[in-house]
Amino acid sequence: MDATYKRGQTLSETLNPGMEATLKARYDALLPGMAETVVDFAYGQQYSRPGLPLRDRYIATIAALTALGAQTRPQLKINISGGLKAGLTQTEIAETIWQMAMYGGMPAAINALNAALEVFEDVS
Amino acid sequence: MDATYKRGQTLSETLNPGMEATLKARYDALLPGMAETVVDFAYGQQYSRPGLPLRDRYIATIAALTALGAQTRPQLKINISGGLKAGLTQTEIAETIWQMAMYGGMPAAINALNAALEVFEDVS
Amino acid sequence: MDATYKRGQTLSETLNPGMEATLKARYDALLPGMAETVVDFAYGQQYSRPGLPLRDRYIATIAALTALGAQTRPQLKINISGGLKAGLTQTEIAETIWQMAMYGGMPAAINALNAALEVFEDVS
Amino acid sequence: MDATYKRGQTLSETLNPGMEATLKARYDALLPGMAETVVDFAYGQQYSRPGLPLRDRYIATIAALTALGAQTRPQLKINISGGLKAGLTQTEIAETIWQMAMYGGMPAAINALNAALEVFEDVS
Amino acid sequence: MDATYKRGQTLSETLNPGMEATLKARYDALLPGMAETVVDFAYGQQYSRPGLPLRDRYIATIAALTALGAQTRPQLKINISGGLKAGLTQTEIAETIWQMAMYGGMPAAINALNAALEVFEDVS
Amino acid sequence: MDATYKRGQTLSETLNPGMEATLKARYDALLPGMAETVVDFAYGQQYSRPGLPLRDRYIATIAALTALGAQTRPQLKINISGGLKAGLTQTEIAETIWQMAMYGGMPAAINALNAALEVFEDVS
Repeated sequence: MDATYKRGQTLSETLNPGMEATLKARYDALLPGMAETVVDFAYGQQYSRPGLPLRDRYIATIAALTALGAQTRPQLKINISGGLKAGLTQTEIAETIWQMAMYGGMPAAINALNAALEVFEDVS
Repeated sequence: MDATYKRGQTLSETLNPGMEATLKARYDALLPGMAETVVDFAYGQQYSRPGLPLRDRYIATIAALTALGAQTRPQLKINISGGLKAGLTQTEIAETIWQMAMYGGMPAAINALNAALEVFEDVS
Repeated sequence: MDATYKRGQTLSETLNPGMEATLKARYDALLPGMAETVVDFAYGQQYSRPGLPLRDRYIATIAALTALGAQTRPQLKINISGGLKAGLTQTEIAETIWQMAMYGGMPAAINALNAALEVFEDVS
Repeated sequence: MDATYKRGQTLSETLNPGMEATLKARYDALLPGMAETVVDFAYGQQYSRPGLPLRDRYIATIAALTALGAQTRPQLKINISGGLKAGLTQTEIAETIWQMAMYGGMPAAINALNAALEVFEDVS
Repeated sequence: MDATYKRGQTLSETLNPGMEATLKARYDALLPGMAETVVDFAYGQQYSRPGLPLRDRYIATIAALTALGAQTRPQLKINISGGLKAGLTQTEIAETIWQMAMYGGMPAAINALNAALEVFEDVS
Repeated sequence: MDATYKRGQTLSETLNPGMEATLKARYDALLPGMAETVVDFAYGQQYSRPGLPLRDRYIATIAALTALGAQTRPQLKINISGGLKAGLTQTEIAETIWQMAMYGGMPAAINALNAALEVFEDVS
């Protein structure tokens, strides 16, 4: 285990406490090392890059998951939660999603808004 | 023509001077009113909404067009240009695109980076 | 509020009575004006355009939502209901969906057929 | 070879004369029988089904290929040509495509409109 | 009914016993002949082609349904079951899915892994 | 730099000699470290995993890029070349692609076949 993995662990535990342990418990028997790859690549090599603040990275992710059809609803909700922790307001998240009506279609945007409302109700 | 159309026209002429005239010349015979709808809806009712700065809206759009596979390359390039005008740096745009390797796949992210490099070369 | 919004309101109340009020109740606190945009753009500027009958517009929409993977199932069902109101028969809707096996894949077509069967059972 | 293949051959030669021979010349060495499958399945078992007129089937196909991002431009153009032969007007095709701005995004719709304009210029 | 239909029936009854009857019961009233087309095209003309072993064909299908967003979860699960019958191990299926993190995104890959775990639990 | 990066470098230089240097030359000024991440994640942590032979991994990748619409044609061609080096025959690649007609649609499959033919012509 190396520097990017350790950096990833710090960031992932801040944003999604317990995520690595959950991935390990669920997938490790079938896919040994998969949890480490998620932590190393996603958090250590991508989300922790300089050049774009974490808040802005969540705008990008929420926009993309919305435009792709909001079919990965659990992951969209995790990233909406992450975005709130990274400093996005509920309004900024809703605006990001609604703008996607122009790119991923109105149905996808409305689907994603519903996912966001569920997250906002849970945290309020 | 109403308030949202006029607001859209001001914004669209700032970001993409001449766009409405181009759309009209190209599509008006087949689709009368289409250019007005683009200006009214996209610029007057969506991009000019309060609640999320224009710079952030371009992060969302560039992320989405990348994740959707970068197949709409001309429109991706127009939005990368628009993002630069709205205050994004070249680094911020590249970071937004590269993060999409996690959501729309590495091939789509690399395709979009190539589109961005073309825009950056044109403006430099 | 202007002409396209008013035209949209008439059409949307005919096809989906109460939709604007529902959107307002659900999203207005977070996204003020979003319900008006849906009514104005989707119904006033798009579905009410001349040049293609409403019935044919629903063929296009049902085909697209099927080919995109039928992941926006609630909106697909709303548009299947709308298509019936606009004069499509159950057979025409099923044929439209099944043809999409060639474009969006067999799994997506079968998913969408199941959504259609649910709508048909509700209206019969 | 059976009834559906023969029915497909008649329809495909009407809509796209020479298509089967072209497919055979291009792909038969690598994929023996592929051209027959296209003729049998696509034309003999799908496009020739009763229950939805051919003209309406082309609305569905053009809508789907647009909403999927218009990335299969050669096939989109072939289907726009086919739609004209099946009785769609240029306006009906343009309206079908433009409506997809609501489902596959504005960039995809504009991409597809450009493909349609190229077809219309060739046939006029 | 012809040779490809009969070949398809043999293969489909081996991989998914009762599938044709289920399709017929569910869809035949609306879409007469649809079940035959699935059997003839999908099983008789595609899955039974020489040139690529059935086991490898399931790798391709599972990869594709994952990368498309795993939104067609029932069909993904049917194909994971089919892959096991065609000789894929649980590990090979999990590896196929996880590799898609690079092409269809991490959320889609994790969604599909969860579908696979459900299938594996049912068969164990 | 650590073990997964070094393992990735060995594999990537075998499959795509010079790729890391090309990525560095092209993207390093804008995205420092991006080339290392591609090598570490894609080749060191994904393609070099045990549990599925490299040949099978290329079936999965070619299937996915086809089903996603073949819009990332340069990357599809790189992976078709890689598949040939990993032991796939031209027939196996063509069969993998053509099977995708059932999942990503016939237009996407034919687009990808054309990309494959271009690669096959270059290597023959």
